[in-house]
Amino acid sequence: MNKNRMEAFSDGVLAIIITIMVLEFEAPEGHQLSDLKPMAPLFLSYVLSFIYIGIYWNNHHHMMQTVKNVTGSMLWANLFLLFWLSLVPFATAWMGNNHFNRMPMALYGFILLMAGVAFYILQRQIIKKQGDGSILAKAVGKDLKGKISPVLYIVAIASCWINNWIPGILYTLVACIWLIPDKRIERMTGINERN
Amino acid sequence: MNKNRMEAFSDGVLAIIITIMVLEFEAPEGHQLSDLKPMAPLFLSYVLSFIYIGIYWNNHHHMMQTVKNVTGSMLWANLFLLFWLSLVPFATAWMGNNHFNRMPMALYGFILLMAGVAFYILQRQIIKKQGDGSILAKAVGKDLKGKISPVLYIVAIASCWINNWIPGILYTLVACIWLIPDKRIERMTGINERN
Amino acid sequence: MNKNRMEAFSDGVLAIIITIMVLEFEAPEGHQLSDLKPMAPLFLSYVLSFIYIGIYWNNHHHMMQTVKNVTGSMLWANLFLLFWLSLVPFATAWMGNNHFNRMPMALYGFILLMAGVAFYILQRQIIKKQGDGSILAKAVGKDLKGKISPVLYIVAIASCWINNWIPGILYTLVACIWLIPDKRIERMTGINERN
Amino acid sequence: MNKNRMEAFSDGVLAIIITIMVLEFEAPEGHQLSDLKPMAPLFLSYVLSFIYIGIYWNNHHHMMQTVKNVTGSMLWANLFLLFWLSLVPFATAWMGNNHFNRMPMALYGFILLMAGVAFYILQRQIIKKQGDGSILAKAVGKDLKGKISPVLYIVAIASCWINNWIPGILYTLVACIWLIPDKRIERMTGINERN
Repeated sequence: MNKNRMEAFSDGVLAIIITIMVLEFEAPEGHQLSDLKPMAPLFLSYVLSFIYIGIYWNNHHHMMQTVKNVTGSMLWANLFLLFWLSLVPFATAWMGNNHFNRMPMALYGFILLMAGVAFYILQRQIIKKQGDGSILAKAVGKDLKGKISPVLYIVAIASCWINNWIPGILYTLVACIWLIPDKRIERMTGINERN
Repeated sequence: MNKNRMEAFSDGVLAIIITIMVLEFEAPEGHQLSDLKPMAPLFLSYVLSFIYIGIYWNNHHHMMQTVKNVTGSMLWANLFLLFWLSLVPFATAWMGNNHFNRMPMALYGFILLMAGVAFYILQRQIIKKQGDGSILAKAVGKDLKGKISPVLYIVAIASCWINNWIPGILYTLVACIWLIPDKRIERMTGINERN
Repeated sequence: MNKNRMEAFSDGVLAIIITIMVLEFEAPEGHQLSDLKPMAPLFLSYVLSFIYIGIYWNNHHHMMQTVKNVTGSMLWANLFLLFWLSLVPFATAWMGNNHFNRMPMALYGFILLMAGVAFYILQRQIIKKQGDGSILAKAVGKDLKGKISPVLYIVAIASCWINNWIPGILYTLVACIWLIPDKRIERMTGINERN
Repeated sequence: MNKNRMEAFSDGVLAIIITIMVLEFEAPEGHQLSDLKPMAPLFLSYVLSFIYIGIYWNNHHHMMQTVKNVTGSMLWANLFLLFWLSLVPFATAWMGNNHFNRMPMALYGFILLMAGVAFYILQRQIIKKQGDGSILAKAVGKDLKGKISPVLYIVAIASCWINNWIPGILYTLVACIWLIPDKRIERMTGINERN
């Protein structure tokens, strides 16, 4: 079984997810700059989600580079990942339309958490298939980012009951962690290293 | 005629179907967890349909592995399949928004039934083209799943006039039958084997 | 310049066109079979448009088989075709929601006509590039279907001012002409042959 | 890292952007030709944006021809470009629904400007990677079009405070500059050449 169609299907779904979010931006009634102002929270949410989907696409791209043959369990682990990512536009819209209120922010974090879990499962399936000397296992290494992210998501979800700035900052922080090239971040977070 | 574009087009359509369903989830007015509660039936319907489209994509992927050249009749059989699958989002929304009421549930089953029929026609076209010693014919074997599914769909549709739990369980059951790897299910349903 | 991306982009656009049409089917309020009844004209329009887009995808697929290198003018001729096809969902919805009223039916025919013209331009660009002994020129031959279709579209548009059955029958007829395999249709319409 | 998935993902996003714009055309209530009249500004905006996305797809296609390996910074520069292009449907709808009013027209120009900047960044990343003797650097040459366009966008945005014809003409002019094959435009604008 070759990996081309799994990549093509994933690219299709991710491309659609990243672009249907923008369908939430309905052109406002008025034509003043001030008519756009109420859309600011939704726009910020969109930017963040766009970056997250971009990161997932990027990581998916890199991970699949190491794969030669696709197994049935990889296909389903991949669909499980796409399922959670497909809920991102809904969570983005709910969060943006409610000015970053508690529940929508917590749900956003929960969906990011589940997507992270799904990505981890997919990674495991691939490493398991590759066996000893797995290229992916080496590439992933200690997988510091993959371990910090869920912790930060959970802290962010819990912090939604304190105020709505902390989760916002934490979600942005996780995105930044993934955006910064690996070497630097590993040095930066060296003190947090746990295994 | 090569099969790449037929695969690419099918992947595109299936990717769109699986993601536009999520457009039905409009962010609710309120920002409480309770505001999400009325969306539960729609969400459940979405999960089921997501799994079904995933199964179809998976099976399509496997089936096309055995194909080298595409004929005109395969292209049209494929479009016939995509047509019925393209109606899944509508049936999903109607079912989810009406709390699994009789008519919407029956329509959902009818569309699944027709998609199954269309998949069978496509399979037949491919086997016919491959002639004796068809790889697909061997791979499909007795096609137990393919034979049980339409029977279960028909029973499910009929049972909509009794209550709305039976069809729901049956639709979930068919999905499970396809999700469980082949060997096990064949042993499990051995007593139902009919040819 | 290779043709893969032009095919991929066209496949993407056609896949989206064929599936966004179904977004027009909003789940009705009620849950009776009778609640679906007012959707019948829209459904019929959808079926017809699905077949038309299917035919275009099919013909595009066949035509591109003969192409090796893509020129700038082919890319733009292709975009011109996709532009007109992208208007099909709008015309389909307007026609279906207005019970096949005169103006919507005429607009539907006009868009089909323009798509036909655009396809012809694309075909010309390819044949021009291939020069003498063009494979496409041979494959197209007298292009009977390509010549009858616009005539039938124009007759259909004009007939909208008589009643709404004639254009409906003519649009269906054109679709059938393209669905029936070539040899047979050429024999069937032999008497209409004009060059 | 190979470029196929980056191309496939970009094609997917651009295909979706170009087709979801048409979702803004909701079938009008009435069925007269006059019922379409209020849609004329939206339709004109759609035509212009369709051409712009077409130009970007075309240029992207050409630029990627010269690329062999994709770097992480190219992937993100590409996503940055797709981000701004994904906002085109929103700006198109706002402009079209407000009869080319000042603010919507200026926003449209701003998004085109940012997309132009993003395309330039992507171009720079590719040239930097290719090093001396970059094929893309040679192909781009003085990049006259790439230098005139942002100037014209800025003039257009400023002119929104004068009237709404000037920006409209300027946006159309930029599109025309890109549509006309290179050689001719270079001769035409020879007098404007600045380096």
